[in-house]
Amino acid sequence: MAVLRCIRCSSTFEPYPPNYKCPRCGGLLEYEIDYENLKKEKFSGKFDFWRYRKFLPKIRNKATLGEGGTPLHRAERLASRLKVRNVYLKDETRNPTNSFRDRSAALMVSNAMDMNYQAVVCATNGNLGASLAAYCAKYGIVCHVIVPKLVDMGKLAQMLIYDAIIEEHGETVDESIEKAEKLAEEAGWYQATPELNPLVIEAQKTIAYEIFEQEGTPDWMIVSMGSGGTIYSIWKGFKELQLLGKADSTPRMVGVQAQNCSPIIDKLEGKVKRQKKNLTHALAILVRKPLQEELAIKAIKESNGKAMAIPDQEIISAEHEIARLEGIFAEPASSATIAALKKLVDEGIIEKNERVVCLITGSGLKATDILQSLTKKRKTVGIGLEISTKERILRILSERESYGYEIWKKLGKTMTRPAVYQHLNELEQRGLITSFIKKKRKFFKITRRGERVLEAINELKILL
Amino acid sequence: MAVLRCIRCSSTFEPYPPNYKCPRCGGLLEYEIDYENLKKEKFSGKFDFWRYRKFLPKIRNKATLGEGGTPLHRAERLASRLKVRNVYLKDETRNPTNSFRDRSAALMVSNAMDMNYQAVVCATNGNLGASLAAYCAKYGIVCHVIVPKLVDMGKLAQMLIYDAIIEEHGETVDESIEKAEKLAEEAGWYQATPELNPLVIEAQKTIAYEIFEQEGTPDWMIVSMGSGGTIYSIWKGFKELQLLGKADSTPRMVGVQAQNCSPIIDKLEGKVKRQKKNLTHALAILVRKPLQEELAIKAIKESNGKAMAIPDQEIISAEHEIARLEGIFAEPASSATIAALKKLVDEGIIEKNERVVCLITGSGLKATDILQSLTKKRKTVGIGLEISTKERILRILSERESYGYEIWKKLGKTMTRPAVYQHLNELEQRGLITSFIKKKRKFFKITRRGERVLEAINELKILL
Repeated sequence: MAVLRCIRCSSTFEPYPPNYKCPRCGGLLEYEIDYENLKKEKFSGKFDFWRYRKFLPKIRNKATLGEGGTPLHRAERLASRLKVRNVYLKDETRNPTNSFRDRSAALMVSNAMDMNYQAVVCATNGNLGASLAAYCAKYGIVCHVIVPKLVDMGKLAQMLIYDAIIEEHGETVDESIEKAEKLAEEAGWYQATPELNPLVIEAQKTIAYEIFEQEGTPDWMIVSMGSGGTIYSIWKGFKELQLLGKADSTPRMVGVQAQNCSPIIDKLEGKVKRQKKNLTHALAILVRKPLQEELAIKAIKESNGKAMAIPDQEIISAEHEIARLEGIFAEPASSATIAALKKLVDEGIIEKNERVVCLITGSGLKATDILQSLTKKRKTVGIGLEISTKERILRILSERESYGYEIWKKLGKTMTRPAVYQHLNELEQRGLITSFIKKKRKFFKITRRGERVLEAINELKILL
Repeated sequence: MAVLRCIRCSSTFEPYPPNYKCPRCGGLLEYEIDYENLKKEKFSGKFDFWRYRKFLPKIRNKATLGEGGTPLHRAERLASRLKVRNVYLKDETRNPTNSFRDRSAALMVSNAMDMNYQAVVCATNGNLGASLAAYCAKYGIVCHVIVPKLVDMGKLAQMLIYDAIIEEHGETVDESIEKAEKLAEEAGWYQATPELNPLVIEAQKTIAYEIFEQEGTPDWMIVSMGSGGTIYSIWKGFKELQLLGKADSTPRMVGVQAQNCSPIIDKLEGKVKRQKKNLTHALAILVRKPLQEELAIKAIKESNGKAMAIPDQEIISAEHEIARLEGIFAEPASSATIAALKKLVDEGIIEKNERVVCLITGSGLKATDILQSLTKKRKTVGIGLEISTKERILRILSERESYGYEIWKKLGKTMTRPAVYQHLNELEQRGLITSFIKKKRKFFKITRRGERVLEAINELKILL
């Protein structure tokens, strides 16, 4: 039997209702499953979320849209670009509503059904609201979502099509959470806000279980942080694998935030004052007063991990990079993990042979900024053709030095060879590439200035 | 060994390159695999696209992002609403780029790699372009897409993030196809336009294989039609299962088009003149001169099937219905299959105990209309609260008659009971519901006028 245990005073409580706060000391409550008895249990059944049912707090109903069992892609092209060997992407965009939150919605809606609730409420800056709305729709439960002003368009569209009752409250999710807490109490609705329901951590720990079954325990696990609950849930999963006698090591956890909104990292580094700006394009991790910061810090410290703050422009650039190299369209919050990986490799903290997993939480198709800016760009496609060829040449040379014929081939033979040489000349005149002779051939390579231009183009694409 | 055979003059040709037109008579070419030799082969390996590799034309490379093996959901709530027993949704939104076209992109990019192409081109009104761009990105191939003016925003965003070279040509995909045909010839690019590459039919026939393995051969299979290739590919799959000795029956195929753009149905019904308007919100099936209409008609006739033209407002209403009842967010072209199912049940053509599968081709997250109109609606959420309660009451009563306390409970106890009675009174005064006494209780039921109001609200939600 699972119990709820206070992480501060260690008091234990009945598992249901899934309260999040200790009535004795106010500490956060988390589930503790019976590791000794579960040691003899094997993971069994189809490779999906419900494979781990025995290792979750007990539920009777099973609300499902086919969640979990997501792929762990080996990112070979990205790895070779970063000059490391083993990079994997845990692709949670492949869940029913295209984010990792479907695991949580499945477990919470099951629990709400067990407890005979007819309405649930959650505060959300997007993914959880979309997930919950879908599961509630399927099982005929009324779904109330409190969203902040800043919320991704695609996620909102999902909540609307699934017929959730939507209320806007506050600029960021921080205020929405306060509202949802009050509403659940007053109206007697099931509380499904991730920060206020410890079942969410249980549901999401299955991501760690799956990674372990797919490729074993990695050396590093990189996760973005909003409220701080997600990184802790993954860490809890890996720790449990060890407690259950299945794994003999745990990964080092890297927590990533946007540089302009990094309260957990500020706290960890002992900075008392928080930045003023507090805004990021990565709306899924735009949280100003993270309720689970204690848990996030625990995960990073216990695992001997790291915390990284990433500027928005690097997040955006990473977004394009995993799309171009690996064919994965991730939301900005997820792309931040790739940007963090880059830095950790550059700084020599992650070594060439170490195995790294980045968590891709949700699909880029849901993110307003990406969708709108990309489609606005469309208007410039016509006039952009010439720029686009030069950009493409710069990209080819940013991978490695090359010569005219090879560049022409890589461009897909889309133009005459003299036209390619004309572009190369112009790029050289502007100082974006330089040439040199090797094996009697004229080679070209990108300059630092050329690299800066490429970075600017990436940014422009988003801001356009 | 597979060969290409002309469906008109029966001449056979080498399987590669995958030409689509007979050089002798101009008929369409299709692949014919060696059924006799394959009879002894079993489907084997993981449940995904590549499980059927032996039953596809031979390829050496394997370009993959984890396509196929999509769920076949049993749609219980939808079925009970329609008063039939067995409705299934083949959910192709669960593919890597959220549409069925990922199967085709996987096979064509594999083939392009086998043939050492460095650039591919396709004309597309959306899904195929998004798929192809993703697979090309992962395998470092240059991807040219020709899109018409009318293309869904999300699909365009995918093409852009995956770095395809995009050219706009024509109002609908008809003109784009002409352009792509010329371009491939002139530039020597791999031709990946679905209408011009018969590998697409081979790739998509695996949808039928999967359905057969999941739930056996259905009695009815409902598929929307643009160019006409998709319905034929599913039909070919079911026919092959019979030729291979695996299945002992085939389903009746229902082809669905939007009423305002239904050239295949017009042809089938012998209407010589085509409508003038020729426009639908379901952009994925907006095709005016369907190149594969001959194949679509063949599928419908051979299978003793049906063709259905559906007005846009019914498509939109079905879109909301499967989201609300089954938690699936489908693009409009797919929702049309649900609207068709409704009509066929109403007309008594599909019987209560028959087993029906509707093909859900792609995700609603990609569709401009849906996203934009839903998010525009957001502005009215505040003032819409009162309307929303009345709408909700009407929906409850449209399912079945009910009484005050039960309605209040179904509303999730979101308001006081007197407030609910106030709404009921107002609805009755407006003639949208009526009341009667049963078992000493006051029951309410929806009127025909109330039903019309609900239909109008559905439409409004999209147009807002």
